[in-house]
Order: sequence, then C-alpha cells, then structure tokens
Amino acid sequence: MPDISKKGASMPQSPIRKLVPYAEAAYKQGKTVYHLNIGQPDIKTPDLALDAVKVNSLDILAYTRSEGSDEYRIKIANYYKNHDINVTKDNIIVTTGGSEALMFAFGSIMDIDDEIIIPEPFYANYNGFSTASDVRIVPVISKIENNFALPPIEEFESLITPRTKAILICNPGNPTGYLYSKEEIRKLAEIVKKHDLFLIADEVYREFAYDDAEHYSILQENDIKEHAIVIDSVSKRYSMCGARIGCLVSRNENVIATALKFAQARLSPPTLAQIASEAALQTPQSYFDEVISEYVSRRDLLISELEKIEGVKVAKPKGAFYCIVELPIKSSDDFAQWLLESFDIDNETVMVAPAAGFYSTPGVGLNQIRIAYVLNKNSLKKAVNIIKEALKVYKD
Amino acid sequence: MPDISKKGASMPQSPIRKLVPYAEAAYKQGKTVYHLNIGQPDIKTPDLALDAVKVNSLDILAYTRSEGSDEYRIKIANYYKNHDINVTKDNIIVTTGGSEALMFAFGSIMDIDDEIIIPEPFYANYNGFSTASDVRIVPVISKIENNFALPPIEEFESLITPRTKAILICNPGNPTGYLYSKEEIRKLAEIVKKHDLFLIADEVYREFAYDDAEHYSILQENDIKEHAIVIDSVSKRYSMCGARIGCLVSRNENVIATALKFAQARLSPPTLAQIASEAALQTPQSYFDEVISEYVSRRDLLISELEKIEGVKVAKPKGAFYCIVELPIKSSDDFAQWLLESFDIDNETVMVAPAAGFYSTPGVGLNQIRIAYVLNKNSLKKAVNIIKEALKVYKD
Repeated sequence: MPDISKKGASMPQSPIRKLVPYAEAAYKQGKTVYHLNIGQPDIKTPDLALDAVKVNSLDILAYTRSEGSDEYRIKIANYYKNHDINVTKDNIIVTTGGSEALMFAFGSIMDIDDEIIIPEPFYANYNGFSTASDVRIVPVISKIENNFALPPIEEFESLITPRTKAILICNPGNPTGYLYSKEEIRKLAEIVKKHDLFLIADEVYREFAYDDAEHYSILQENDIKEHAIVIDSVSKRYSMCGARIGCLVSRNENVIATALKFAQARLSPPTLAQIASEAALQTPQSYFDEVISEYVSRRDLLISELEKIEGVKVAKPKGAFYCIVELPIKSSDDFAQWLLESFDIDNETVMVAPAAGFYSTPGVGLNQIRIAYVLNKNSLKKAVNIIKEALKVYKD
Repeated sequence: MPDISKKGASMPQSPIRKLVPYAEAAYKQGKTVYHLNIGQPDIKTPDLALDAVKVNSLDILAYTRSEGSDEYRIKIANYYKNHDINVTKDNIIVTTGGSEALMFAFGSIMDIDDEIIIPEPFYANYNGFSTASDVRIVPVISKIENNFALPPIEEFESLITPRTKAILICNPGNPTGYLYSKEEIRKLAEIVKKHDLFLIADEVYREFAYDDAEHYSILQENDIKEHAIVIDSVSKRYSMCGARIGCLVSRNENVIATALKFAQARLSPPTLAQIASEAALQTPQSYFDEVISEYVSRRDLLISELEKIEGVKVAKPKGAFYCIVELPIKSSDDFAQWLLESFDIDNETVMVAPAAGFYSTPGVGLNQIRIAYVLNKNSLKKAVNIIKEALKVYKD
C-alpha cells in the first residue's frame, strides 16, 4: 500500500475533532449538548441574500471570471468605501471563503520554509494552511492578563529572520475577541515597513466591534499600501458560512496579479453564492444593529456569569463572538471530554473547544477553553451553569 | 516593497491568457469571435438542478460537513453503483470543484519535490496545482499519430524514481479527447501495483464517451483498491461549471482520512451548490443521450471539416469535447494572436488555444492547437472555415 505524504500526516486536526465521538455518544444517550465550541452563528441569513438565489434566471450555471464577477467586485469596492477603505474592483479577488484567500496569500508571498509571525492564540486553521503551503508559523504569545492585546512590538522584532515574510493578525480576533486599536495597527505598520514585510489582516469579523469601538483596517494605513493584504469573507458578516465566498484585497499590484494566477488555476469562485453575496451587500444597517446588540447582550451575560465562578479568568471580548476562558483545572482537553462523557444536569451538558489547539507553542493554554457565544441567552445561561456545577465535582 | 514569492512568480498562466487582450481588442473593433478556446459548454443546465436551489427552504446558509452533506454523498455513492463502481459515502469527500480534489490528492500523497508522471498533452492547470503544491510533474509524451493513446508502459517505467509517488491520467482526456481502453487501464494498474504508486484518474468527462465505447474507471480495478484516487466534478456532466462541486473518491482509508484534514481546514464545500448537485443526480438518461448525440454530431462535423484542410492533422476524439489539431505552421501562439489581430471573414474571427501550454516538455506541440467543440454546428462550421481561409494567407 503506498504511503500518504509526511505533509498529509502532519496536517493538524481541528481542536474539537477528538471530541466529536464523545459528543455523538452523548446524543445517543439522549443528552442535550449545548455547543459552545463552534463558530456557526444561529443568526438568520438576510432574506435578500437568500431570495436573490431563488429568483436568479440563469439557464447555464457557468463559471464567472476567476477573480469574481465584475458586478460583485464593483459592489464590494463600494462596501469598502463606506468603511473608509479606498479600493477599486481591481484590488479585489473573490475567493471560495476566507480560507482560500489565505491560501492564495500564503502562496503568493511565501516559499518553502518561509516564516510568518502570528500572535497566538490564533484561528486554528492557520496551522492547516501553513502545513498545506509548506511554510512555518512563528508564534508570539499574547496574554489573557492583557485581554490578548498586541504583544510588545520588540517581541515581534526579536523573531524576525531573513526567512520572515509576513505578520498575520486576526482583527477582531478568533479565538480571543480582541479588537486591535488604531495605535496597535500603526505599530504593526511601522514594523512591516521597517523590515519590508507583508502585513496580512484577517478582518472577517469587521462589523462585530462592540462598546462603540471602531474597527480600524490595515487598508486605512496609507503608508503600507504595498504591504497590506486583507482577508475577508461573507460567512460571519451575513451569517452565510455555507456560501463559501470571501475575498483577498490588496493595493499591491504584484500581489493581486500573483494571487490571480492561483485563482485562474481553480477557474472560478462559486457562481450561485456570488449572486447571494452580491445581494447581501444591500443588507440594511438595522440588520447589523440588531445582530450586534444581540451579541453584546450575549457577551455581557456570558462574562458576568463566568466571573461568578471561582477561579475562572476571562478576557472580555471587544469584538467577534468568541472568548478565551481560563479554568481552575490542569487539562481542558480532559475536562471537555469529561463534560461530554460523564457530566450532565437534567440530561444536559456542554461542548467547549480546548484552547491548546489555538496555540502553536506546546504546553501553552492547556487550562483554557474557547467559548463561541453563538447560542441564545437562555441556552448560554444554562450552559455556563453546567460548567460552573461541573467544576465543583470535576477532579483533575 | 516586499517581494512576492518565487512560487508565485513561477505559477503558470493559462495557455489562452496572453490572447485575452487581443480578443478584447477584436471585440472593440466590432468583430465576432468564435470561441473554440474554452471548456464552458453552451448546453443548458438541467432544470431540476436549477430549480432545487430556487425552492430551498434554508433560513441560515450554514456550513455542511467538511466532507460534504451525508445526503449528497449517499446519492453520489449510488450514482457510482449505477456505473459499476462499488463505493460508499465514506469513500467520498465533496470538494469545491475537481480543482480542489486534485489539490487535496496532491497534498495527501506528495511532499516537497515529489514527482508525478502525467501523459502529455495534459490539462494545463495540473501545472498550477503542482507549483502550488511544491511537487514536480514528469511528463511522458503521447502522440497525435496514435490518437494520444497510452504511451508504452516501458516509458512510464523508465521515468520512475524514488521520488515518484503517482501517475495521473485524465480519462476521457482534456485536451486530447482520448478514451483509455480497459486494457490500457489494466497496464497502469499493474505498474502502480508493482512500484507501489498511487494512480489518480481525473474522470470528470466520464459520461462523454462516444461511438458506443464504454468508459472504464480505475475504481473498477479491484486489484488497486488502495492505489486508486478518482477526481470527479459536476461541472461538465450537468453543464454546471459555476457550481464548483466535485469530489475525491478512494477506497484507501488513509487517503480519505488525510484528505479530510485538508477539507476540514477549509471548513465546508459550498452549500447551495451541493443542493443543486444533489438534485442534478436525478437527471434522466434522456438528457445525456441528447447531449452526447449533440457532441458526436459536432465532433463529426468538426473532424470532417478539418480533414478537408490541406496539411492539417487531427486525432479523432472518442470522448470529452476537445481535440488537438496540428496545423501546417511553425507557431500556433503566433497564429492564434494573428487570427484575433489581423484576420477576419465578414468581420468574424476565431480564438483557439495554442497547445504548447498543455505540454510540459519545452518545444513540443508548438504547431498544435486545442479546439473545444462547445459551439453549435453552424458556428463550428463557420469557425473551421475561418481557420481554413486563414491558413491560405497566414505567413509564418
């Protein structure tokens, strides 16, 4: 039997993958499982996006241009203009989700064994994309004590080598919920200019900025026009994760021309989902106001309930819909499994994501979990209560 | 300004990309351009596929499972059973087009600088996928004189090194239209068993087999269960290229488990397009009978018209909807550009794909073009006539 590749063997699995069989066993026992582990929002997709697909009049479901349809890219550029980001359709390549935008960015700017510095904890699939692209992630630790703010810029600088090609941030952050300030973005802009690096920002949660904080995009920094690459997606913005539509945005013409070659190899992003995504751009501000007010009240409930639990530390998120929670335990891997296998209140239990999978430094985050607050407040309250009661009886 | 990667710089462009500005200039001059250069069929997508999307009742356009929805995979397995291919849903990973299935296959079985042997001319984007995956294509030349039949198996054997991990075929072939016989597949099965290699077959044109020839899948060879990986797609089968739905099929559990990790990193294939593709599986045989009879009559017309032109050599295709044509010229690159720039009959001209881009051996195929017979017969006849008249006045 021929062997699979070393690359394939070392492709990381999702931090919750190990738990799936335990969750399935819990269902079989008739338990209700509150899913705090996933980023699939329960928010309804805007009707105008769903309806656009229903009334489409295509006779042939054909390819679009590899960079996405002109109509859609013109409207995306307009969306950015409304967010004080000055780009044209020629700065945009429509991709199959933010995932593909990241793969195109990695391929366009990094060769085998090149390095990319990422503050950790970070979105776990960055590990998969770096393995698939034969490049290396160099982590710089951000700390729960500082709400996962940007680590001191000297720490980034000390990690730069001749192989370093880029710094990658997620803003607002999955899994931290941290929203970088204008000052932090400026510090990053300075360092990438000084060392001639790219700065990639995964801004898929742009709209999810709370407490009157304003999201500041790296594309608003005019000094780093040639350095900035934004990864974007409709998945969370319009609760349409299954569309698989994202984009790569850069004012660096070489980056766009190069990413376009990767895009041409795979021919076209999905056509139906582009129709839905184009329509979604007409979503009124009231939709976002409602969604954001819902997330803020969920977050406030979640944080206040968590803070009532002895020994629990939590970084109050300023954006997205995740937070990292430190528990008074040794291993969140073990705790998460035990919750599914051996604990329930009235036949209800909770699934959480152990946080170690969001770090690439071994041994860090072992007592942390990531909570996605994508459940309604009633479920969220019950779920936190289950964690609270569980911690009383759980033995390391 | 930071540099793009060497990988990005060496990503190949599509064989027709250079011609696009000349085609656009021709439009601007008011010329009609017959497109013999692209694989976007003019055949209507089955209504039941388009309608399924229109009546979908999703409230939230959510992710599906990373390997594709269970419902859809169960139906795909059933489709294969109807084609004498015995697989279950667990042998199938739904992908974003055949393109992504190829990327997952390459990543799962090959490491940096590993080699894959491919008979050339081959689908040009294999070059892009190999560059993106940091692996090397080793070509073995198939010849127009033999209708692009499988090269002698000794020629494959002489190219096998310790780095060789797989042989890849496209069956029926793009750009050759060649349909491999059961005996040829058996020869490949023997060699991959003997040298413990994978055999990847891109079978996206499975239904397009003509003259009562039957397509024989590598998955029908029970001796190579652990070696065989099929790449498939709905794009051409149901004329729904824009769906971006394909799949990777293998009975090798390690391959599936490994490809699944790549699939999980990118979360999910497109949800709406899976709904359309699942419905498309109900397409009645009469649809295919009609489509195939249309392609056969186009092919017959095309070949007979081409054979009337002095000095033209053509391999009669037995499948797909492409053929390679050798012209009495030195450079088809130059000829294709000249057709767009400087030639017309009654303000009509033709765009063809120069064939050199389908070879990876430099200097081969320079006097060949690929024709996609995806136009109606009237247009096809006019297009060939334009080529005929053009050859009378064209000077190398």
